[in-house]
This record gives sequence, structure tokens and C-alpha cells, in this order.
Amino acid sequence: MTHPSHVTTIAVDAMGGDFAPGAVLEGVEAALTADPSLRVLLVGSADTVEPFAAAHEHCEPVATTQIIEMGEHPAAAVRSKTDSSIVVGCRLVKEGRADGFFSAGSTGAVMAAATLVIGRIKGVQRPAFATVLPTAGAPCVLLDVGANADCKPEYLAQFAKMGASYATAALGIREPRIGLLNIGEEPGKGSQLAQDAYDLLSGTTGFAGNIEGRDIPAGTVDVVVTDGFTGNVVLKLMEGMSKHLLGEFKAALMSSPVNKVAAAVLKPSLGALRDKLDPDLHGAAPLLGIDGLALIGHGSSGPRAIASALRVGAVAVRAGLVSSIAASLGREGA
Amino acid sequence: MTHPSHVTTIAVDAMGGDFAPGAVLEGVEAALTADPSLRVLLVGSADTVEPFAAAHEHCEPVATTQIIEMGEHPAAAVRSKTDSSIVVGCRLVKEGRADGFFSAGSTGAVMAAATLVIGRIKGVQRPAFATVLPTAGAPCVLLDVGANADCKPEYLAQFAKMGASYATAALGIREPRIGLLNIGEEPGKGSQLAQDAYDLLSGTTGFAGNIEGRDIPAGTVDVVVTDGFTGNVVLKLMEGMSKHLLGEFKAALMSSPVNKVAAAVLKPSLGALRDKLDPDLHGAAPLLGIDGLALIGHGSSGPRAIASALRVGAVAVRAGLVSSIAASLGREGA
Repeated sequence: MTHPSHVTTIAVDAMGGDFAPGAVLEGVEAALTADPSLRVLLVGSADTVEPFAAAHEHCEPVATTQIIEMGEHPAAAVRSKTDSSIVVGCRLVKEGRADGFFSAGSTGAVMAAATLVIGRIKGVQRPAFATVLPTAGAPCVLLDVGANADCKPEYLAQFAKMGASYATAALGIREPRIGLLNIGEEPGKGSQLAQDAYDLLSGTTGFAGNIEGRDIPAGTVDVVVTDGFTGNVVLKLMEGMSKHLLGEFKAALMSSPVNKVAAAVLKPSLGALRDKLDPDLHGAAPLLGIDGLALIGHGSSGPRAIASALRVGAVAVRAGLVSSIAASLGREGA
Repeated sequence: MTHPSHVTTIAVDAMGGDFAPGAVLEGVEAALTADPSLRVLLVGSADTVEPFAAAHEHCEPVATTQIIEMGEHPAAAVRSKTDSSIVVGCRLVKEGRADGFFSAGSTGAVMAAATLVIGRIKGVQRPAFATVLPTAGAPCVLLDVGANADCKPEYLAQFAKMGASYATAALGIREPRIGLLNIGEEPGKGSQLAQDAYDLLSGTTGFAGNIEGRDIPAGTVDVVVTDGFTGNVVLKLMEGMSKHLLGEFKAALMSSPVNKVAAAVLKPSLGALRDKLDPDLHGAAPLLGIDGLALIGHGSSGPRAIASALRVGAVAVRAGLVSSIAASLGREGA
């Protein structure tokens, strides 16, 4: 490493996302300003990363010549485009030059590159995407949100441990309560997968049993474990519901002149509420189980989401997320 | 039938639900008042159903001596308690004395009784629970919401047809657009189940392809097809989110004295919004695929939800839901 040990280095894909590179650069600038211990390796085309790095402290350029597009087959693209921003970013992590990698580009490509280039933590069967959701109580971790559409019970048992490590590292929750997403509270309920996962999870530290859909927004547990199909539906549904209900609420506020006056009075409070419900606040999903930090952002990430992703990434690195996952899964084998 | 043909007769389980019989009786009273063509066969213990029926026009008592409790094993209870309100209610449908049966009691027991006593429509592989959800556009039908935790692709293909029949019968949508709930829009995305179901659905009238979680509240399609595990999680999550977000709004409105004044101005509009989002408005889920109408209410159904269930039930009966499903599935075989 070329930087002092108290500095956290994140490689950032300057070319990934619907609003790249503009939104990425703005987000990096905000993150560097907010966190003097953050260092960014900005990965992308020379004409984008070099001028920006020259103008910003704690930022170094890593010029690449290729870009993996959204439509490409992930694994094939990762194998053929070895000088793409995604592959090079993962290589920086593998070589120890960066503590983590962030991209708002193709989720499939980042997943493939993280798995092929960085590799899994020993013993991990399937890496899983985790995300942090706002709830009526404290935020909670949901995983898998889409890395594995079809799961075996053993995967879910590992997701529980990885999710608990992430809740500790990212949210500071010392003894996370883990819930298995199911369609009934009692043991023996649900799909065969959920029933078998329940049995496997029964001995796990912090396992609080089954939870149902309504328990997620209620904030009943700190970690919600499910397969990548259900988790992805849940995540997108929650985003859609927040947007829909805020829209309905806004329409109600604007439905008459006298309402509009009242709405003006309420504006600051409603702005704070919107912020609280904003998924951008925890906008990045780490791929847990990789032997290094790999973070994915929404394709539609704006500067704020990107800055927040880098903040979350730095927090996870400083909390020793990867070694904590390795230790937690290692205990399983012992 | 002992009633004129233009009258719709619903058998109602007076003993089912957390607030039975009080809430059921209040709901029946409201439904009878609202709909002069509705006739109710009130099924339950004599001391409950007889005085009520004596005091209300268009209501007849059917006295039973047994109750299936929430904790009982559904199929076993249905087989042994042949004079329970749930079994007798289904028998009234089987014998043609009622057009439909409603209960807010044990979902499992109603499902078992409907299947064992009334029986399936010929050709139906698995009956499915359907529910109507509020969206940003028109309400939409979601199924299966919990009858089948594990599904085969063929079940989902039938759910699509049954759901379309229900959207036409209950919501008056002539050519319903059907979406398959998935974790990506393109064909070939998702779990093995979703991929195989997509292939089967490709020829179905009205099939609009894959939709994602966020498309449900957006109201992109009229019928959302999924397995009973995912559907149940979606339904309960939407209920939880509505409750959570309305709670957050309320807290924001009450966060300062000046906000409270503004909130008072907004009260009528917000009341209308709460009503719009209220799942009680479409509070009953029919078990589609049964050779007669079987409707389940939330265990926590209040009078309003029960009245609404009877309204929905009468609408579905008058629209010929059961024969429409039979015809739609019959076309499949032809």
C-alpha cells in the first residue's frame, strides 16, 4: 500500500451508471470533502479521470481503455474486457492497492468481476447482495437482494451470518437480531426452502425466527434473510411504495388552495421525511462473501447516492467487514 | 334455490375472525342495508345467528354446533368437525343453497373445506388466493397470495387466467393486462420458476411480460402473477408499508404546533387518502379455482372489511366469476 494505514482507499468506477461520469465525479468530490481519511482511485478513461484527479487532493487516476456496457453478457464481458473500468477496479482490490471497489455500472458485470477477479472468502457458497432499508425503527439489512434468484437452504444460513457481520460493520449493531422472511411466524410455515432454512438457522446466534412482510417496515429485526428473488422483489416494491405514497401524499396536499397554504407550512417537515425514506441514503449494496469490498450502486445513482455509497464503503472497511465475515463463517466449520 | 334468481345469497361464517361474532354481525348488517338484492345465510352457534336473523330481513340462520379454532390442523379439523361453521358454510355452496361463502376464520381451514367440500373447477391444478391492491392507477389483482408456497410453472400459467377472470368480474376490466412478477424485465431473467412460467405464459391473451416489484404500486398491469410465497410477502409488505408511511406522515404533521394547525386544514384530504390506501376496501381474498365462491377475510377484519367482502363477493357472483374461470381454463385444453 502506498498510503498511510489510517487512510481508506476506494477504487471508483468513473464510467458506471446512467449519469456517468458527471454524477460519479460530483459524488466523489462530495465524499472526499466530507471525509479527509478517504482516498479515491478513480478508474476510467484518461480524459475523464486525469483532469479530475489533478484538481482534487486524495484522488489518483487509473486510466483504462474499455467500458462494459449494460447490455453485455456479464461473465463474457469480464473475461474479454480486461482493461475495463470494472475489471481494473476489482484488480486494484485483489492486489491490495484499494480496500474496496464501487461501481454504479452493470450489476451482473460487477458481480462477475468481483467473483472472478477478487474471489470469494474461503467457505462462502454464494456471495449475496445486501442493502440497508429504512424502517419505523432503526434501519435494517436485507439480503440477498438479487445475486441468487434460486437458493439452497445452506446459502440462506450463510447469508444470515454475512448479513449480521454487515449490520455490525455498517450500522454498528453489536448483536443483530436475524429474521427469516417467511409467510407465517411459526416454525414449519412456508416454502420448502424457508422450512429447511429455518432448521439450519435454528442454532445461529441472534436468530429470531420467522418474520413476515409487514415486519420489514416495522423494523422488527436488524437482518432480514431471504433468497435473491424475494429480496429483489421486496427492495423494488419498497422503493416503489415510498415513491407512490409520497406522490399520493403530495397530491393530497395540492388538492385545494387552502391545502397548498398548509402544505407550505409543512414543507420542511415533509422534506425531512422524504430524506428519511430516501433509499439513496444507504444507496449502495455490497456483495458480501467477496474477499474484499465490492459495492454496487443503482444505475440511476445521483451524486448524493454515490457520496453516500463511498461513505458506507469506508465505514465497512474501517469496521473490518471482510475479516468479520470470514471469522463468522470460519466458526461454522469449527 | 329458495330465493328469486336475481338475489345473491352468501353464506357467512358468524364465528370466524378475531372480533367475531360482533364485527361479523355489524358487517352483515351494513352489507344488507347497502344491497337489497343480497341475502345472507348466517352460519354459527344458534344463540348468535338466530336472534340476529330474526331481527334482520334477508338474513336466515343456519345453526351449527362446532367451531374450528385458529390453531387446529386445517384438513384434520375439516374432516372431523363436520358441523363446524366453516364446513357447513361450504356445504351450503356445494348444495346450491348459497352462491358463495365468506369467513374471516382460519385461512387454512377455509382452504381445506373449500377444496374438500366444494371441490375444484375441472382442470384446475391448484386454487390460488387473489387479492385486489390499491395502486397509483387503477386497482390491480395479485395472486397467489398464500395458498401455494411452492409452485410449478403450470400453476402460474393457470393463475394468470384465473386472475384475469377475477379482474374482469370484480373490477370490470374487459381485457386485463397480465404481468409476471420477476426480478428483471427481459425474458430469460429471474428464477427457474419465473423463466419457465414466462415461456408458458407467452401465448396467453393479455400477457404483458415481466414486471418488477416497483411496478406493482405504479399500477403497470391489471393482474400480477406470482407464487404464493412471493405474493404473500408482497401483500403483507404493502400493508406494512402503508401503515408505516402513514405513521411517518402523521408524525411529521404533528411535529410542531404550527404543523398541527396546518394538519387540521389537511385532515379531510388525508382521510380520503387513508381510505384510498385502506386494504379493507377490498378486504377479502377469493380462493380462485374452487367450483363456487369461497372468500377469506383478514383475521382482524372489522365491520367495514366484512361489509366490503360481502359486496365484492356479490359482485363476483353476479359477474359469473366461477363459470368465467371454467371457460377460460377450458379454452386452454381445447
